[in-house]
Amino acid sequence: MSESLDARATPYAAPIDDVMVALEVAGIKELLDYGDFAHVEFDHVRPLLEEFGRLCAQSIAPTDRIGDLVGAQLDPSSHQVATPDAFHEAYARYVEGGWGALQFPTQYGGGGLPGVVALALQEMFASANLSLSLNPVLTQGAIEALLRWGDAVQQSTFLPRLLTGEWTGTMNLTEPDAGSDLGEITTTAERDHEGVWRVTGTKIFITWGEHDLTENIVHLVLARTPDAPAGTRGLSLFVVPKFLVNPDGSLGERNSLRAQSLEHKLGIHGSPTCVMSFEGARAELVGPFQGGMRAMFTMMNAARISIGAQGPAVAERAFQHALSYAQDRRQGRSKLTGERQAIIEHADVRRMLLTMTTTTQAARLLLLWTSAQGDRARHAPDHDVRLHAQEMIDLLTPVAKAWSTDVGFAAASLGVQVLGGAGFIEESGMAQRLRDGRIAPIYEGTNGIQAIDLVTRKISREQGKWVHQLLDEISSVASTTTDAELTDSARALASAVDALRTSTQWMLEQLEHHPDDAIAGANAYLELFGVTMGGWLLTRRALGSTSAQRERFVGECNFFALDQLTKAPGLAQVATAGARHLTVPIGDRA
Amino acid sequence: MSESLDARATPYAAPIDDVMVALEVAGIKELLDYGDFAHVEFDHVRPLLEEFGRLCAQSIAPTDRIGDLVGAQLDPSSHQVATPDAFHEAYARYVEGGWGALQFPTQYGGGGLPGVVALALQEMFASANLSLSLNPVLTQGAIEALLRWGDAVQQSTFLPRLLTGEWTGTMNLTEPDAGSDLGEITTTAERDHEGVWRVTGTKIFITWGEHDLTENIVHLVLARTPDAPAGTRGLSLFVVPKFLVNPDGSLGERNSLRAQSLEHKLGIHGSPTCVMSFEGARAELVGPFQGGMRAMFTMMNAARISIGAQGPAVAERAFQHALSYAQDRRQGRSKLTGERQAIIEHADVRRMLLTMTTTTQAARLLLLWTSAQGDRARHAPDHDVRLHAQEMIDLLTPVAKAWSTDVGFAAASLGVQVLGGAGFIEESGMAQRLRDGRIAPIYEGTNGIQAIDLVTRKISREQGKWVHQLLDEISSVASTTTDAELTDSARALASAVDALRTSTQWMLEQLEHHPDDAIAGANAYLELFGVTMGGWLLTRRALGSTSAQRERFVGECNFFALDQLTKAPGLAQVATAGARHLTVPIGDRA
Repeated sequence: MSESLDARATPYAAPIDDVMVALEVAGIKELLDYGDFAHVEFDHVRPLLEEFGRLCAQSIAPTDRIGDLVGAQLDPSSHQVATPDAFHEAYARYVEGGWGALQFPTQYGGGGLPGVVALALQEMFASANLSLSLNPVLTQGAIEALLRWGDAVQQSTFLPRLLTGEWTGTMNLTEPDAGSDLGEITTTAERDHEGVWRVTGTKIFITWGEHDLTENIVHLVLARTPDAPAGTRGLSLFVVPKFLVNPDGSLGERNSLRAQSLEHKLGIHGSPTCVMSFEGARAELVGPFQGGMRAMFTMMNAARISIGAQGPAVAERAFQHALSYAQDRRQGRSKLTGERQAIIEHADVRRMLLTMTTTTQAARLLLLWTSAQGDRARHAPDHDVRLHAQEMIDLLTPVAKAWSTDVGFAAASLGVQVLGGAGFIEESGMAQRLRDGRIAPIYEGTNGIQAIDLVTRKISREQGKWVHQLLDEISSVASTTTDAELTDSARALASAVDALRTSTQWMLEQLEHHPDDAIAGANAYLELFGVTMGGWLLTRRALGSTSAQRERFVGECNFFALDQLTKAPGLAQVATAGARHLTVPIGDRA
Repeated sequence: MSESLDARATPYAAPIDDVMVALEVAGIKELLDYGDFAHVEFDHVRPLLEEFGRLCAQSIAPTDRIGDLVGAQLDPSSHQVATPDAFHEAYARYVEGGWGALQFPTQYGGGGLPGVVALALQEMFASANLSLSLNPVLTQGAIEALLRWGDAVQQSTFLPRLLTGEWTGTMNLTEPDAGSDLGEITTTAERDHEGVWRVTGTKIFITWGEHDLTENIVHLVLARTPDAPAGTRGLSLFVVPKFLVNPDGSLGERNSLRAQSLEHKLGIHGSPTCVMSFEGARAELVGPFQGGMRAMFTMMNAARISIGAQGPAVAERAFQHALSYAQDRRQGRSKLTGERQAIIEHADVRRMLLTMTTTTQAARLLLLWTSAQGDRARHAPDHDVRLHAQEMIDLLTPVAKAWSTDVGFAAASLGVQVLGGAGFIEESGMAQRLRDGRIAPIYEGTNGIQAIDLVTRKISREQGKWVHQLLDEISSVASTTTDAELTDSARALASAVDALRTSTQWMLEQLEHHPDDAIAGANAYLELFGVTMGGWLLTRRALGSTSAQRERFVGECNFFALDQLTKAPGLAQVATAGARHLTVPIGDRA
């Protein structure tokens, strides 16, 4: 059915102004003062965003719909996966531009830019074509793992061509019986008679596990070695290339692994989601023996922020589409003039558009602010700044991932609602936003897992020292704002941060003796954290706005305060209610 | 792609116990005491539900997935629409059982049952196969219009076979330029030289506008007559059968109308959504000349409640699927035993399941309670009861339609989340719930339109007399509840109804001089109304529960109070904020 449909994609324009402001709120200027970034000038950042924005708008965004309609296709006899021709062209431009290497060390051909700039570009790529953008996300995870844990030979073998994008990378974690629970992994790695590691097993949900965009694919695979302890402690990480690499860098023998099948998914049809079968595939250990989980988290944490950026990415494109529709579509007449009105004049349509754009912008601010902490943690000259920044990125990664993807999906759904009946028709393109956007709250650790991570592992560091420090910083912005136009929103922010502080204290008290009570409220607590961070960053943006920006930034800050921060007291009640209300019998029906 | 997929549908079991209790809360026993229902015994209601439940479970639910995969197909040369074979069999069983006629007058072959019982069955049908269930929904709308507005010949010509389901009905309202704004309709009806009305024009989004399940289709078409005033006042309603009917009841000439094309939709693929072209089709006026809008609302109001029931319908099936998955799927280990745990043991999964089932049950209670007002309004012996009930159904129809479909879609999305990665895979069947469930907040008047209707036309009747009377009734339940286990939820209900009362008073004050301020808060006001009604009805159900029901009903009431009623104060703030915050410039970006 779908092949007969119109394959024109909706337009996309990179929101350069908003992204630049968000980078400034995230502290890009301070980062660029660090010695490690001496080769990067602030004035070069905007032209870089603009150039990539043009690539996204002109070359990548038009491929988005064909990917949805045609998707990736597996040839069951050859086990090869074909992607649409348009993907090949768009990906070639991406590689030509060296866009995949921006944030990596110059030593391997990278651009040495702050990761926060790369994340800003990643959001644009994901807006333009979410399916295709996943390929670099996974490649970057593989690069991070090899940079941190690979030995010198592995690094020189794989990194240069992963950085250019000539090869791509994957993360092979999940198995049919081991999803959120990696301790159950059964894929094995054993040494053969030559002492070479051989990986055998089946992995599922492997994003871009097989495709025809590049000549090689570098799989990073979590596997269990013989006699290893049960659970996650027995896992090690291996690099398993599709084609072995000769010492001179040329491609050698085809490794014994293949895509068994592709999933038929609700969305991201252009991204091949593979069942991968490893049959004694030649592998090398990456990082410490039985240290696979730590190495895996190196990939995972980088990927979580990138996945978080898919929230505003999907929402931004849905917003642009909904806005354009609302400006064109006429329904109802003006009471004053009797003329037919564009539906953007209707209050409820304005409300939906404002919810879409303010949550999008709040999520973008949160993601870039969190990502900038990663740059601080790696590059700040001062040890205390590095330490603080590392604590901040650890604390906020689950919030940034989960809250941003939840509001991103909600915005896509509002996009459908703005279009009304037309939004439910696939040709409009808005239905694809809803379908594509539904994955981000699920993968790279479901949002429920993020909430548990936040509550049980993040806020509790050093008896809550770091989370309280952050809340004090938010409170001080809320209480010192003298800007008359921000009085109401500052009050709402103060009330939200109070609710968050009380909830945090309660969580910390429960964790020791009643962890089940803390976990029961984790989802509401994470949402409370997300809206509070969003309100804080929008307030900071409004306070620092230029006169040209001010009307919109103040208005958006106030709108968000009303639309989102008013949820805070209710969320705090749910967060601190304990586990008792979850004991209701479920499913005791005939 | 999709044809190769597994067409097995997920199982469905009609929730008979819950539906029976909801009917009792809605006052079914009182209704059956009315003289008009003297032929119906209370003890016959449950067996009726059980019989239809079996039909849904065994014959209709299994057709749901094939409808999604294959859909309805238009032959572009013959303009005929083919539906899956499985639909023919299921629909034949429905017709054989006489299920479509239950609530209609015995005079035309109906069962003379209360409409609320038919609505309970309608929900089950929609759970079993939302696409197929739409056909009777539209047919019932056509029946209502002909019963109320048709002349004796029209009634005897069309009603008997619409009641059996041998023929089906449609509502032809929307046009490309007239969606929410029917005043722009351009389809015309003119008398030919013989004095016969001829309808010409194009209608879009016509549900089941053409199909092969029955030998005739009876279209009800809103059209403009020559020299009619502009806007909705110039519209009249016409009956336009696909095949003309001879005086002896046999089918005559094929009328000049046809399906031009079918929409490719996000969901409900099994329901043919047609672009209908009328080319001088022979028509008869139904009801008063230029009284089309009133006649249309007869169809529309009945349909709105039925569409509302699609919220709990989709949510119930998603819940049953998610529950079964959560009971089977094992991830993580028990801290006590070290055994792998079913994910239903995890707090966040329990939370999601409880949100799904409590909002489903609250929406069902609201819909059945509202629908029962319709039976009271028609059949109560006492004039004051009838008047009061008519006010209640008018007031609550927009709330029941919009809130129920919003929470239904949210529950479908939670269903996807409970399944995690598996939920995103089409074969799981959960993705279809999300796709199908997304339409209900859009059609039969978007939920934004419902909110405006509630605020501008419903609460204001007689200076808010009726809405205040309802709120007093809710307050009295909240304040007199002495049940120790319901103390917390009664307090939450009292707080919610206070928030709703304050917001209502504010709305009534704005309506006169600042209607834009009232409209700006309509969406939040409707949600506040919905959660308050849900909390009230769950409280009443818990208070009246038997000892076997009590633990679950009390627990669900308390869970809903925490999960939903805690939103009330925040919603009241948004509802009463006025229009100023919507004046933020939107889209002033590069």
